[in-house]
Amino acid sequence: MNENERDLNEELEELFISDELGDNADTETEADGLEEEIMISAEEREIDLDALTELIAARKYVDVREMLEPLPPIDIAELFCELDARYRAMLFRILPKEQAADVFVEMDSDLQRALIDGFSDSELSGYLEELYLDDTADIIEEMPAAVVKRIIRNSTPENRVALNRLLKFDSNTAGALMTTEYVRLSPEMTVGEALKHIKRVAIDKETIYTCYVTDKKRHLVGIVTARSLLISDSETPLSEIMEENVIFAKTGDDKEEVALLFDRYGFIALPVVDSETRLVGIVTVDDAIDVMREETEEDFAKMAGITPSDSTYIRSSVFSIFKSRIPWLLLLMVSATFSSTILGRFEALLPAVLLLFVPMLMDTGGNSGGQTSVTVIRALSLGEIEPRDVLTILWKELRVGLLSGAALGAVAFLKVLLVDYLLMQNPEVTLFVALAVALSLALTIVISKIIGACLPLLARRIGFDPAVMASPFITTVVDAASLLLYFVIAAYVFGL
Amino acid sequence: MNENERDLNEELEELFISDELGDNADTETEADGLEEEIMISAEEREIDLDALTELIAARKYVDVREMLEPLPPIDIAELFCELDARYRAMLFRILPKEQAADVFVEMDSDLQRALIDGFSDSELSGYLEELYLDDTADIIEEMPAAVVKRIIRNSTPENRVALNRLLKFDSNTAGALMTTEYVRLSPEMTVGEALKHIKRVAIDKETIYTCYVTDKKRHLVGIVTARSLLISDSETPLSEIMEENVIFAKTGDDKEEVALLFDRYGFIALPVVDSETRLVGIVTVDDAIDVMREETEEDFAKMAGITPSDSTYIRSSVFSIFKSRIPWLLLLMVSATFSSTILGRFEALLPAVLLLFVPMLMDTGGNSGGQTSVTVIRALSLGEIEPRDVLTILWKELRVGLLSGAALGAVAFLKVLLVDYLLMQNPEVTLFVALAVALSLALTIVISKIIGACLPLLARRIGFDPAVMASPFITTVVDAASLLLYFVIAAYVFGL
Repeated sequence: MNENERDLNEELEELFISDELGDNADTETEADGLEEEIMISAEEREIDLDALTELIAARKYVDVREMLEPLPPIDIAELFCELDARYRAMLFRILPKEQAADVFVEMDSDLQRALIDGFSDSELSGYLEELYLDDTADIIEEMPAAVVKRIIRNSTPENRVALNRLLKFDSNTAGALMTTEYVRLSPEMTVGEALKHIKRVAIDKETIYTCYVTDKKRHLVGIVTARSLLISDSETPLSEIMEENVIFAKTGDDKEEVALLFDRYGFIALPVVDSETRLVGIVTVDDAIDVMREETEEDFAKMAGITPSDSTYIRSSVFSIFKSRIPWLLLLMVSATFSSTILGRFEALLPAVLLLFVPMLMDTGGNSGGQTSVTVIRALSLGEIEPRDVLTILWKELRVGLLSGAALGAVAFLKVLLVDYLLMQNPEVTLFVALAVALSLALTIVISKIIGACLPLLARRIGFDPAVMASPFITTVVDAASLLLYFVIAAYVFGL
Repeated sequence: MNENERDLNEELEELFISDELGDNADTETEADGLEEEIMISAEEREIDLDALTELIAARKYVDVREMLEPLPPIDIAELFCELDARYRAMLFRILPKEQAADVFVEMDSDLQRALIDGFSDSELSGYLEELYLDDTADIIEEMPAAVVKRIIRNSTPENRVALNRLLKFDSNTAGALMTTEYVRLSPEMTVGEALKHIKRVAIDKETIYTCYVTDKKRHLVGIVTARSLLISDSETPLSEIMEENVIFAKTGDDKEEVALLFDRYGFIALPVVDSETRLVGIVTVDDAIDVMREETEEDFAKMAGITPSDSTYIRSSVFSIFKSRIPWLLLLMVSATFSSTILGRFEALLPAVLLLFVPMLMDTGGNSGGQTSVTVIRALSLGEIEPRDVLTILWKELRVGLLSGAALGAVAFLKVLLVDYLLMQNPEVTLFVALAVALSLALTIVISKIIGACLPLLARRIGFDPAVMASPFITTVVDAASLLLYFVIAAYVFGL
């Protein structure tokens, strides 16, 4: 502890002229108090921003470290966002280098860039050493060319090579998601040798809990878990304890499918191989979880007719929200005028009373179509169904549609007769009207389910994102269809 | 290998009378062939069901084991679903006990129950020994009382106690999600002792990669990762290397919030403590991922007006799909008749041409409201916003609404004038009509955004699920509102 403190003071002295360092008094009391309050529950993780700002302004660096030491990186990263810009660089330098690096990874790219611009080259390369390569690669992808050049220039030669390889992959593939910092072992090693090797290299590996056994040509021949290493005795050769049935991803695989593998099999890491099944990297579960969340939120956005964005709702500006929503509203508004056209065609010809049921028909059709499309879209993105299952799905939805149509049609028929006809005594409402409405409703539901099932499958078939085909778009199509249907049926019922 | 085979034969002899066992010929070739084809890519994981069935029918048990040995449990579980019911029990007995148990966990409860009914008590307790306690608890929750009694009766006394504790927790809490099979260490231990202890107990612990350091009274005082154990030298006492700032969950915490912690902090395991912060269990990342997926799919379903169900789309019967969708369709259809009533009120008073724009108005309002509600609902369930942020959100949506309303209103105004008035030469379409439509559209969008923001927040506030308030329901409310607005504005514009 005091050891650290002395280093800390020296380190900080270089950065700022300060006379307030090393007031160890409250440090030790802190240390003594530890047992009582080591737990961090959600509430306790919230830090008083003003108190922190004051400490920084007053250059009480040791206290600042004490205050932030127990916090997880992402929580500190959020503090940075809220912190007055003037103090950010200063706070970053106060943090121990390793913690600083972890925090840096969690920041959004604007903040990262601002900090990088403030770094000296030596600082930059210092922090880069602490980062995992896949994180560095992710950061680079968000940076302008000039910054990227600086980062590459300040990386160690071998990292530079690895980075260049990582950056070559399409950002939607396993290749871009993976890290090259895994533990590689050879089948001839004994458990004891393996453990020694791990002890030596562990420090800059992203995970050591699954180790990868490869032959001379780097072909993946098996995996060994830290668990099996810990429970086997040290003379056993790895070839005896390694698991040879390895599920792996290829560098070109879609990252969403890779994430699904984690969900399905409960991995904590997955090996990634190149076209010659040579091991080139691993994907870890935390990155897989990020992919799952991003993909889910993207689907939610698209289904609601919103252009997905990375930034959170609270942080995004009114105008950026406007931009992400207006294109779809516009498109859907224009397409909705089809319905108006249809309405215009028939309006004059038919009893005005029929128009009363248009909203109900359109809404029900839209809802019924939406139910199917969302179900199909989810089943598609969970890999549960494929476009080739189209017949199975249509047959299923057809039957569901007939059931629902019959049920709702009957209810509508009775409702119109009992409420509008008998109760409201509305003279215009006749048996014919009730019949026309009920029939149209039933058919609308069947058709909306068919449309709701076909559009997403079609989208996927033509390499389009099914989620985009969801509720809003389908509503528009179904509206037009249901109106057309309604008026044709009505015309028939009224013998026009 | 041959060792195993002999055990296998004896074991199987007890189960069936068979003369075909142990034809080692193809076994060895298999073994030799391993290096070439150890990798399992998605395609290779697909097994020929008929071939499997034949092998079982022909009692080629060794071949069956060879065939299934490389498959992950969940893939085998799916084979069971497709397999002819007659062969299921047989196939299950053919599998090595440990693999059988892993497969059992992945089956759906009907299948599990059918198998359990076929087990002898000794078989049952044999398999139960192989299961992790949290899995057993999950299985039990799906079983009828009689089966539960059998399971409890056939568990070891200590498991019985642990099970009873796990089963007491509400199924939506961390308590129900956790397992009690974790590695517990004491701060006085040295790294060497810890590793020895782990080696001894690892076999029935769900994870050994994060170990939990507790005091005499089982209070959690820190965690030690397998990584830090492997890189520290064996004399170091745990108290020196343990991480004392532990993020934990309480047994009563909502499992969805627990899953969010994994997402946020990238844990592979999280300790769960009781009201006196005594360590009672851990949640592992694979279970957290399951929760995330379930919660997401539930939200998708609710947003589409579908009652969520556990079973997959392909597996669920037409009638169960019908049942899960009809209540919402019915509710929404009935509520949609509000719009009809409003329409009925004004229809007679206003120029018929106004009705042409009703579908466009209703759809746009619904879409715009849906955009907001889905955004708010997601932000709520990701813990990004709280009902108390209502003013921030309303202020944001109001401005977005005004921007969108102005933009779309202008477009609609021009469209009506240029297309319907000039191009189509529709005599009924006047400047007044264009004005009424544009104004109503603009206001409809503003209002729909307000409604879309308020309903989910209100729902959460009154302890209701926000997701249920999404698109379909909001569409109905917005439709009524927009119609009312339209006609009032129209009446005003036309000076009625």
